[in-house]
Amino acid sequence: MAKVICPREKDYSQWYNDLVYQSGLADQSAVRGCMVIKPHGYALWENMQGTLDKMFKDTGHVNAYFPLFVPKSLFEAEEKNAEGFAKECAVVTHYRLKNDPAAKGKLMVDPDARLEEELVVRPTSEAIIWNTYRDWIQSYRDLPILINQWANVVRWEMRTRPFLRTAEFLWQEGHTAHATAQEAIEEALKMHEVYTRFAEDFMAMPVIKGAKTANERFAGAEETYTIEAMMQDGKALQAGTSHYLGQNFAKAFEVKFLTDQNREEYVYATSWGVSTRLIGALVMSHSDDDGLVLPPKLAPVQVIIVPIPKPSAEINDAAEKIMKELREQGIRVRYDLDEKNRPGFKFAEHELKGVPIRIGIGARDLEQSVVEIARRDTKEKTSVPVDQAASYSIGLLNMIQQNLFDRAVERRTQKTNFVDNWEEFEQIMNENQGFVYAHWDGSGETEDLIKEKTKATIRCIPMDNDLIENGRCILTGKPSSRRVLFAKAY
Amino acid sequence: MAKVICPREKDYSQWYNDLVYQSGLADQSAVRGCMVIKPHGYALWENMQGTLDKMFKDTGHVNAYFPLFVPKSLFEAEEKNAEGFAKECAVVTHYRLKNDPAAKGKLMVDPDARLEEELVVRPTSEAIIWNTYRDWIQSYRDLPILINQWANVVRWEMRTRPFLRTAEFLWQEGHTAHATAQEAIEEALKMHEVYTRFAEDFMAMPVIKGAKTANERFAGAEETYTIEAMMQDGKALQAGTSHYLGQNFAKAFEVKFLTDQNREEYVYATSWGVSTRLIGALVMSHSDDDGLVLPPKLAPVQVIIVPIPKPSAEINDAAEKIMKELREQGIRVRYDLDEKNRPGFKFAEHELKGVPIRIGIGARDLEQSVVEIARRDTKEKTSVPVDQAASYSIGLLNMIQQNLFDRAVERRTQKTNFVDNWEEFEQIMNENQGFVYAHWDGSGETEDLIKEKTKATIRCIPMDNDLIENGRCILTGKPSSRRVLFAKAY
Repeated sequence: MAKVICPREKDYSQWYNDLVYQSGLADQSAVRGCMVIKPHGYALWENMQGTLDKMFKDTGHVNAYFPLFVPKSLFEAEEKNAEGFAKECAVVTHYRLKNDPAAKGKLMVDPDARLEEELVVRPTSEAIIWNTYRDWIQSYRDLPILINQWANVVRWEMRTRPFLRTAEFLWQEGHTAHATAQEAIEEALKMHEVYTRFAEDFMAMPVIKGAKTANERFAGAEETYTIEAMMQDGKALQAGTSHYLGQNFAKAFEVKFLTDQNREEYVYATSWGVSTRLIGALVMSHSDDDGLVLPPKLAPVQVIIVPIPKPSAEINDAAEKIMKELREQGIRVRYDLDEKNRPGFKFAEHELKGVPIRIGIGARDLEQSVVEIARRDTKEKTSVPVDQAASYSIGLLNMIQQNLFDRAVERRTQKTNFVDNWEEFEQIMNENQGFVYAHWDGSGETEDLIKEKTKATIRCIPMDNDLIENGRCILTGKPSSRRVLFAKAY
Repeated sequence: MAKVICPREKDYSQWYNDLVYQSGLADQSAVRGCMVIKPHGYALWENMQGTLDKMFKDTGHVNAYFPLFVPKSLFEAEEKNAEGFAKECAVVTHYRLKNDPAAKGKLMVDPDARLEEELVVRPTSEAIIWNTYRDWIQSYRDLPILINQWANVVRWEMRTRPFLRTAEFLWQEGHTAHATAQEAIEEALKMHEVYTRFAEDFMAMPVIKGAKTANERFAGAEETYTIEAMMQDGKALQAGTSHYLGQNFAKAFEVKFLTDQNREEYVYATSWGVSTRLIGALVMSHSDDDGLVLPPKLAPVQVIIVPIPKPSAEINDAAEKIMKELREQGIRVRYDLDEKNRPGFKFAEHELKGVPIRIGIGARDLEQSVVEIARRDTKEKTSVPVDQAASYSIGLLNMIQQNLFDRAVERRTQKTNFVDNWEEFEQIMNENQGFVYAHWDGSGETEDLIKEKTKATIRCIPMDNDLIENGRCILTGKPSSRRVLFAKAY
């Protein structure tokens, strides 16, 4: 059962779907727009979670858990937020099924079990959380509150793609409360920085840091900070957002506190989140036509050892020694003892799954006291003395991690342009050639018009000061004081 | 804001609620029957999760994630299971809200966005998972599947209590698929054993192991194994169940495989789960009128250091040294630097939160080079040389863990009776005196009648062979070959 993956060149979108399903990351489900995250995909998510959770705790946050459901009256309290999510939310209206008298063995919604107030399945938790914070906050002594939640959320998207856009997805959402605007903004920027470090240092995925335009802000936010990554096809993927919410939710839910000056004031808020969407970003950043390419720091299995052609006392012995040494260094290593399949099949399977390093141990090689070490990213193979296999692999894992990052930077550089005239801009966007730094007059109308004409959006107003310069809007020719980042996006 | 907890003697149920809310484990929410798990409660859950997750992985399981929603047609496929949960499930019927034309700023369910098929919010995931397993299993080579899921589930309970019974709760659910009945039964028993070890070795909560009667089995199971713990008021709490599901779900979802004899057969299944209910069990097993008493192995903070009366260079110095030594041994230690409150207040607060060990460092004590170490379980205090404080604490943590278990066993022994006549049985149950081992004729009718008369249920048919003996049913006088465990239960 050889697995066939559509080449990227032929159909990038099909390549992505093939890869996700065939590498065992996810499966389709019986529920519209919802996927099953299979063990390989979930193991990747666990590694992401573990890393992020530690980063959150190291920056002073604690975890908690708030209800899945938001009563409609709370949901609608913050108007912009409600407006932003109302069109895509799953609504619970009943709390019981009963036997269907018209169809034996079938159930029907019990009309007598209608809820007095409908419950929205959370698309995000600001409403339910700020309604709770009201009881927790009286004085400045109760601040800040630095809470994160790992949870599932539901947004009834019409067009879904595994990981990138699903009706239900897993994420974390931080919700913090502060005594001053400045402290809240600093918090939002701090988490923006945490996301940047995670993307670059762990996912090996370079990102552009910036702020969203007013049009593209989170519903209910005063400012949204984002990290934008380029996928291999040149399109952008928003990989994590951090919002300064001002006093919007505090006002909607009447959350006030007594300042140290004994004055009553509304509380300042932030929220920030990343989701299983990052798995999609990871796949599209590094993988190739043979399968996944995973950064060593997040790969569920970092080193796979394959006996050639099959296990023997000598091969097992060498494998055990290498595994012991690797495990002592905290490396996730597995020995493939499956007897049903031949080495060639296994090689393909582990390549498909993105294992960064494969150590092949063959009887003939062992006579020379060497093993063959293959790296997934470049497919290079090297013959290494058995007793150096572990230390060589550890060094190689670091090299692969760095190489993936460098390759992605290189790819991004090649597909990034500074553009100053509209024809060139349109052409680049039509040909899907990547990121464009261009001038924009700062108006939402112009932004909309550009989107309409080219499908490109302003991904962010980058924080990079090198982009500050006087120029003229790419579309209207009106004056502009900095370039912004345009791209088509996932 | 001194916190008042109702004493156990006065009102056990009020004591429990006071404790849960005032110690910061949980809070009420705006959603009927749903609670907020606060940071202290969630930290406890994280420690439970971490321990259990490792135990699951060590026994060969991997994690995955299946959709929150179950389409009604799948939900009703396994009839007994559906019947068991139909009366208490939240049902999503619509996927959009819209502006309410009759009320400005309000939203209403959009009648045009009615789902073709209603979605049940999972009360348990057998249906959605077995519908997926059908695609994953063709031959015996695809078996076993050993998957666990960490998730939220919803059961629309009418009477709820924090942790013990809530509409939404967090849990793990293992769902495994096997080629033979024997292998599946072994799996169910293996996880039963894992739960027993977790309850006793980590929660310090002794349990009785046994099988449920047919009346009390999980809906859709052939056999349910349970662990039953005694709470301080003598009532039983079911702390974890493991089900052998036979071929029931395979038949409902048409999951067949080719055996190694090339015969087509239905797959055998198990499922097993524990939930945030365990936090309630933990509270009720060990805590006292001053607050939580947490077993060291699961306590979010194991050692708290309090400066007396407030921090100073010398005290900080001593605290740092002790912390460093404790952290090197993997102990979770915190230094209470809060300047707003005095030591007495802090002592009460940390007792309320159940921190197993408190180290008080006072200026005068330091002159003698000693610190005061207080244990939460017995409230005993000892003066210990500063340079031995860390090693003493580590030994003490082990002693506390053991003492909690011993105390719970002792309490259970005192409240366990072997009863052979009905009057005594009734009296014990009326007075809430705990566990009773009695004979039962094996019929569901008798079981129901006993429940009706006394509110006592058969908690399990214990695995303990010492209970095998001929006798006569406590109610009907009919012959019986073993005693079973009766109790009132949470």
